[in-house]
Amino acid sequence: MASSSKPTPLLKDELDIVIPTIRNLDFLEMWRPFFEQYHLIIVQDGDPSKVIKVPQGFDYELYNRNDINRILGPKASCISFKDSACRCFGYMVSKKKYIYTIDDDCFVAKDPTGHEINALEQHIKNLLSPSTPFFFNTLYDPYRDGADFVRGYPFSLREGVPTAVSHGLWLNIPDYDAPTQLVKPHERNTRFVDAVMTIPKGTLFPMCGMNLAFDRELIGPAMYFGLMGDGQPIGRYDDMWAGWCIKVICDHLGLGVKTGLPYIWHSKASNPFVNLKKEYKGIFWQEEIIPFFQAATLSKDCTSVQKCYIELSKQVKEKLGTIDPYFVKLADAMVTWIEAWDEINNSAEVKTSDKASEAGPK
Amino acid sequence: MASSSKPTPLLKDELDIVIPTIRNLDFLEMWRPFFEQYHLIIVQDGDPSKVIKVPQGFDYELYNRNDINRILGPKASCISFKDSACRCFGYMVSKKKYIYTIDDDCFVAKDPTGHEINALEQHIKNLLSPSTPFFFNTLYDPYRDGADFVRGYPFSLREGVPTAVSHGLWLNIPDYDAPTQLVKPHERNTRFVDAVMTIPKGTLFPMCGMNLAFDRELIGPAMYFGLMGDGQPIGRYDDMWAGWCIKVICDHLGLGVKTGLPYIWHSKASNPFVNLKKEYKGIFWQEEIIPFFQAATLSKDCTSVQKCYIELSKQVKEKLGTIDPYFVKLADAMVTWIEAWDEINNSAEVKTSDKASEAGPK
Repeated sequence: MASSSKPTPLLKDELDIVIPTIRNLDFLEMWRPFFEQYHLIIVQDGDPSKVIKVPQGFDYELYNRNDINRILGPKASCISFKDSACRCFGYMVSKKKYIYTIDDDCFVAKDPTGHEINALEQHIKNLLSPSTPFFFNTLYDPYRDGADFVRGYPFSLREGVPTAVSHGLWLNIPDYDAPTQLVKPHERNTRFVDAVMTIPKGTLFPMCGMNLAFDRELIGPAMYFGLMGDGQPIGRYDDMWAGWCIKVICDHLGLGVKTGLPYIWHSKASNPFVNLKKEYKGIFWQEEIIPFFQAATLSKDCTSVQKCYIELSKQVKEKLGTIDPYFVKLADAMVTWIEAWDEINNSAEVKTSDKASEAGPK
Repeated sequence: MASSSKPTPLLKDELDIVIPTIRNLDFLEMWRPFFEQYHLIIVQDGDPSKVIKVPQGFDYELYNRNDINRILGPKASCISFKDSACRCFGYMVSKKKYIYTIDDDCFVAKDPTGHEINALEQHIKNLLSPSTPFFFNTLYDPYRDGADFVRGYPFSLREGVPTAVSHGLWLNIPDYDAPTQLVKPHERNTRFVDAVMTIPKGTLFPMCGMNLAFDRELIGPAMYFGLMGDGQPIGRYDDMWAGWCIKVICDHLGLGVKTGLPYIWHSKASNPFVNLKKEYKGIFWQEEIIPFFQAATLSKDCTSVQKCYIELSKQVKEKLGTIDPYFVKLADAMVTWIEAWDEINNSAEVKTSDKASEAGPK
């Protein structure tokens, strides 16, 4: 077989690629050299009767809304509909240690020398090397070739901590909110910053779900993308919500979050008017949500991601519930998510018949 | 005059370049296009009878140890001797708002397109644009051309805070401690990272004095490089000490510290055996010093840099004095430094006769 002569990529059998989509996955053609040997989990959003075409040769399982409802039953209420937040269902049903998630409008970017960037390989490098959240290293990731810890970096901190999340960036269309899109419709990100860095402990960041990898075993249960889209008052805050939660929990558990390389090529800007409608409540809510997460602390009893997440959900209900009843609903959904996660992941195996409505050739 | 046709560089009359040295300043020839129109403050270290040659055409004042002793009297004890930490005397006697300090083994670096980097101009850009210490922006400095705040960045934080410090980096010889130099004698920094970023509030970093700019009015009195060199138990921790102090005080006062661009070309590695002798106490002391600074808080009464610094000196004496009597001496020197700073800076003008033993042509 042709593929048997290809070198085995890193973590081939330990990583799933999760893609939320409403359309045919032609974009995978461009990713074929990098993704072909990995398993894909496709989460089909919107109308479940629509047939999503996946290019030949990819190994995948696909879940539509009917599958999600069947597998989770009443707990399916925690999975968003008509919003790419539905992707977190894929994180839940994966059986692998690592997840890479990418949007279907993200193409392969080129580095300044013109070489195509293997984004997944860089994410894996980020995840497999430690993070340094307790002290800033001015030469960025000290574990990269040609770099190290600079003078004055405490030796006791040079082993670092396990990396739970790798947040990649985007060339071309930057990830701007609707107001910025409206004000700067022509701005493109052309700056290739050749760096990976740890986001320091105690610092929050806006996590984008377009090009994101994480260690499911370390942080998976906190990677919940919330309630967005159909029937919800906001959208486009799914990844932000997850980012605030995972950062607080990583800080509590002593895990690392990296950002920087790899870049993908973000091909098209979403409609700023549509985005504004989805975002506008988030834009003022975040002025209260972010201080809440900045001040959030978890008790010493929170020794697992699940325990952290449940405690955080209680704080959300208590402290953000006053902003809008939505946060009470969201706090409940956070609990449902953890229950569903544990049910799916603690059962020996999800039965094959329960899995996917369609499966690609192995 | 030939120079009258040159465009006036940014902050020409508001910035001094401070250079500590023990040798002729031939390295300035390379910097001529970028430094020629600025005023230099040269702090001559070591034997004051040695004559330091400065290339023709530079406007400078030069202070040797005799000048420092004459100007500060008994308070000259706070200025290190036989160590480049003496440079902070130049910060004290400057009458300008901004300082750029550079080592005499730092040459002009080139960017990846082969253009010579005007390091000073980039520092000025860094200092004149705000910092964002309260939330991380994943596309780095949001005030640079072609960049902005990403989706999810709170709008209330987008004005940023004044930038007090701009920390530049080094191509070629990285700023490693002696153990790392010994282990990796051939490592060179060849990675040009095209980024400037704010070091988040609450995060300390190893500040290197090789290529550093700051706003004297905002943070000058905290930019004390401590007691190093002759008669002291450590060396090579002068800039680190200043970095810990300024970061705690900037965090307290709501000021920003940036790191990243510009690069200079660091031409030669210092002797790792000599460095080890200077550093070894610092290497284990820093394991206690850094947690001390990480935990340090300043009271609300500390509304000026001077007040912050005096309060910090008390905490140093109390909490680090137990490590070694050196820290008691250092805490006292911190107080002396502030007294000397205020004396020099509050007197209407240092008399011309008191100023420098030698002065270049205006």
